[in-house]
Amino acid sequence: MAQESSVPQHLAGLEPGFDLPALPGMSLSEVQTPALILDLDALARNLRRMSTFVATHGMKLRVHGKMHRSVDVYRLQEQIGGASGICCQKVSEAEVFARAGVKDILISNEVRDPRMIDRLAQLPRFGGRVAVCVDAPGAVADLAQAVARHGYPLDVLVEYDSGAGRCGVQGADAAVALAQAITAAEGLRYAGLQSYQGSVQHLTEFNSRRAAAAEAILRTAEVIDALKAAGLPPETVTGAGTGSYTFETSSGIYTELQCGSYAFMDADYGRVLDIEGRRFDEGLWENALFVLTQVISTAKPGQAVTDAGLKSLTMESGLPLVFGRPGLTCTGVSDEHSQIRDPEGVLRIGERLRLVPGHCDPTCNLHDWYVGLRGDQVEVLWPVSARGRSY
Amino acid sequence: MAQESSVPQHLAGLEPGFDLPALPGMSLSEVQTPALILDLDALARNLRRMSTFVATHGMKLRVHGKMHRSVDVYRLQEQIGGASGICCQKVSEAEVFARAGVKDILISNEVRDPRMIDRLAQLPRFGGRVAVCVDAPGAVADLAQAVARHGYPLDVLVEYDSGAGRCGVQGADAAVALAQAITAAEGLRYAGLQSYQGSVQHLTEFNSRRAAAAEAILRTAEVIDALKAAGLPPETVTGAGTGSYTFETSSGIYTELQCGSYAFMDADYGRVLDIEGRRFDEGLWENALFVLTQVISTAKPGQAVTDAGLKSLTMESGLPLVFGRPGLTCTGVSDEHSQIRDPEGVLRIGERLRLVPGHCDPTCNLHDWYVGLRGDQVEVLWPVSARGRSY
Repeated sequence: MAQESSVPQHLAGLEPGFDLPALPGMSLSEVQTPALILDLDALARNLRRMSTFVATHGMKLRVHGKMHRSVDVYRLQEQIGGASGICCQKVSEAEVFARAGVKDILISNEVRDPRMIDRLAQLPRFGGRVAVCVDAPGAVADLAQAVARHGYPLDVLVEYDSGAGRCGVQGADAAVALAQAITAAEGLRYAGLQSYQGSVQHLTEFNSRRAAAAEAILRTAEVIDALKAAGLPPETVTGAGTGSYTFETSSGIYTELQCGSYAFMDADYGRVLDIEGRRFDEGLWENALFVLTQVISTAKPGQAVTDAGLKSLTMESGLPLVFGRPGLTCTGVSDEHSQIRDPEGVLRIGERLRLVPGHCDPTCNLHDWYVGLRGDQVEVLWPVSARGRSY
Repeated sequence: MAQESSVPQHLAGLEPGFDLPALPGMSLSEVQTPALILDLDALARNLRRMSTFVATHGMKLRVHGKMHRSVDVYRLQEQIGGASGICCQKVSEAEVFARAGVKDILISNEVRDPRMIDRLAQLPRFGGRVAVCVDAPGAVADLAQAVARHGYPLDVLVEYDSGAGRCGVQGADAAVALAQAITAAEGLRYAGLQSYQGSVQHLTEFNSRRAAAAEAILRTAEVIDALKAAGLPPETVTGAGTGSYTFETSSGIYTELQCGSYAFMDADYGRVLDIEGRRFDEGLWENALFVLTQVISTAKPGQAVTDAGLKSLTMESGLPLVFGRPGLTCTGVSDEHSQIRDPEGVLRIGERLRLVPGHCDPTCNLHDWYVGLRGDQVEVLWPVSARGRSY
C-alpha cells in the first residue's frame, strides 16, 4: 500500500490537467466523458430572456445559486442576465459566493446549527449584504446572539409557508409575531417576507399551475396585509421559481424572484406547459445543460449502452432525454451506465450523445467542472465552485 | 469580484480543517451535518461475515470499489474481510486504487474511449495485475494496440449478458468467438468470463430472486460448456452481487464474487428477504452507512424538516429510512431538505437523525469524506478517494 498522506487521494499525485474533462480550445470530440457541458449561446439567450422580463416588469432578480453552484455562472447572470443578488440554501454554499465578491446574498432557508449560525454571522466580512430566513422565535434569538458576537449587520426575513409544506410559519399571526421578534432583536434588521411555493413549480398543465400559484399568492397577500396592519410592511417579498414566476410577478405583491432552473433547463421543467400549451423547452427556455456521454457497448440489437450513470446524473425526476436525436430514447440508468433504445441501430461505439438530465440542481452537484462550449469548441472550464457544500 | 485563480474556488482560501465534517476524537454531536457516517463496528461485522462465507465456500472475493470508492474501506476489506481483489467500473476510479497499491484490479466494464484505453494499459505500472472486460471484437483489437504501446501485461475477460440486458455478448457462439480473439491477440491474456446479472439483485422475494438467478446461472453454464468445448475453459468466472451471491456460490460454476453493498447496506437492499422471509437488514447485514442530518424546522405540527437533501443522498431507489426511530418516517426529499413525519411531535431543533439512504453507491459519491464512528466517537476521517471519478 502507498504511504498515508494528508492530501485526499483523489487529488494527490496527478499530472496537471490530467483530470480535467477538457481544456479551452479543444473540440467537443476531445471532451472526456461523462462530462457536464454548457451550451454558452443557449445559456446567454436564457439569461437575456429573463433579464428582459424582470426589466419590463420592474422585478428584482435574485437568482438561485443552489442550482448551478458556480461563481462563473452567477457572474454571467449579473453581467447579461439582470441578476442583482443571489440566494443560497446553505451557509457553506453562500461562503463560496461571498468570498468571490458577490455583494447581495440571501440564505433562503433556515440556519439552526450553532456553528453554522456563527459562520453566517461572519459572512458580511466579505463586504456584502447578507440575509437569512427564520420560521421560529428561537432562530431570531440565536441569530441576535451571533450578530452581537461578530458585529456585522444581518437582514432577516420571515419565511411563510404558502403551501409547499416544508419550512416556514403557517398563518398570518405567527408571521407577525416573528416580524415583531426580529424588529425587537438588537442587531437584526427586519427585511421582509419569503414565500416560496416549491410544489407548484413542476405542475405540468398551465391552468393547474396557475390555480395552485394563485392560492399561494392569496395566502401570501393575507400575510402581507397582516404585517402592514401591525405596522411591519415587508420591504421585500421574495419567492417564485421557473415554473411560477410570471404568476408572482403579475400578482403585484412580490418584489423579488428566486428563479434558478430557467438558466440551464432540465427534462422535468421541459415537460411543463406554457399558456399556449407549448412545452417549456420548445421556445420559452433552451436546454443549455447536458451530460455528454459516449457509447461503450452495442452488443445488444436495438440498444446502445453509454458511460453516464447515476454518478453523472440524478434520477429523482425521471430519465434523461437524448437531445436532438428523435429516434433515440433513454430507457434506464444504473450506477455507471445509461441504456439507449436504438431501434434502427444507428449508434456506433464512441459516438457521443447529449443527455438532458431529469433535474439540473443535483446533477450539477455531481461534477467538479462545467465545460462551456461555443458551438463545438470548448471556450471555458468553470469549477462547480460550491459542489458538495451542503452544510 | 475576487481575482481569478487556477485553484478551484471551492478549495481556495480555506482555513485548515475548516471544511472537514469532523476530526478524530470528536463526539457524534460535533459532526457537521449533513455528513456521511460509518458505524465502524457494524462495518467490521459485515466484513467478517462475508469473509467467513467466502472462506467456507472457497470463493475468491473481489469486492466492488464502485460502491464505496474508498481506499481505506478496501484496505479494511483486505485486512478483515477476506477480499483479495477489487473491481472498478471506470479507469479513473481504478487509477485511485492502483496508485494506492491495490494489486489485483478488474475493470468490470467495457472501456472503449481511446484515451481511457491508453490510461488502462498503463495501470499495471503501479505493480499489480489489471484485467478488463470486453463484449466486442473491436475492443480486443484496441486493447492489443494499447498494450503494444506500453508493454504491460493485461488480462481480458469475456463479458456475457446472462439477462441484465446491459453490456455483454449474448449467446455462447459470440462468447467463444471473443475468447478466441483475445487468445489470438498479442499481449492480451484470456482470463475468463464475467457474467453479472444485475437486475436479479433487488428482487425482494426470495423464491423470485432464486429463480431469476438460476436462469442466469443456467445460461452462464451453457457458455462455460461452449468455451470448454472450444478448448478455452475460463480460469475465472466472476459475477454476483449482495442479492444473489449465495446462488452463484452454490452453482459450482463461479469462482469469484463481486459483492459491494453488503459492507454498508442501504434501504433498498434492506427490503430484500432471505430464505426465511427475514429482511436483509434484520440479522443478515447491518446498516453501517448513514447520512447524519439535523432538524432545522418544526414549524408544522406533526412534521420536522432536516438539512439533508438530494445533494446528500440519492433517491432513485426510494426514500431513506430513519434509523432506530420507529415513530419517524421520511416522507419527502428535496434539494437540501428531508421532511420527517413526526406524529407525536418528539423532534426538536438541532436533534440529529441517522438516515439510511435508498442506494449506497451514488450516495457515497456525493460526499468528500466518510466520518468513521466507534460508538458515538469519531475515530477516523476517510476520503471518498475516487469521488467523481466516473471517466
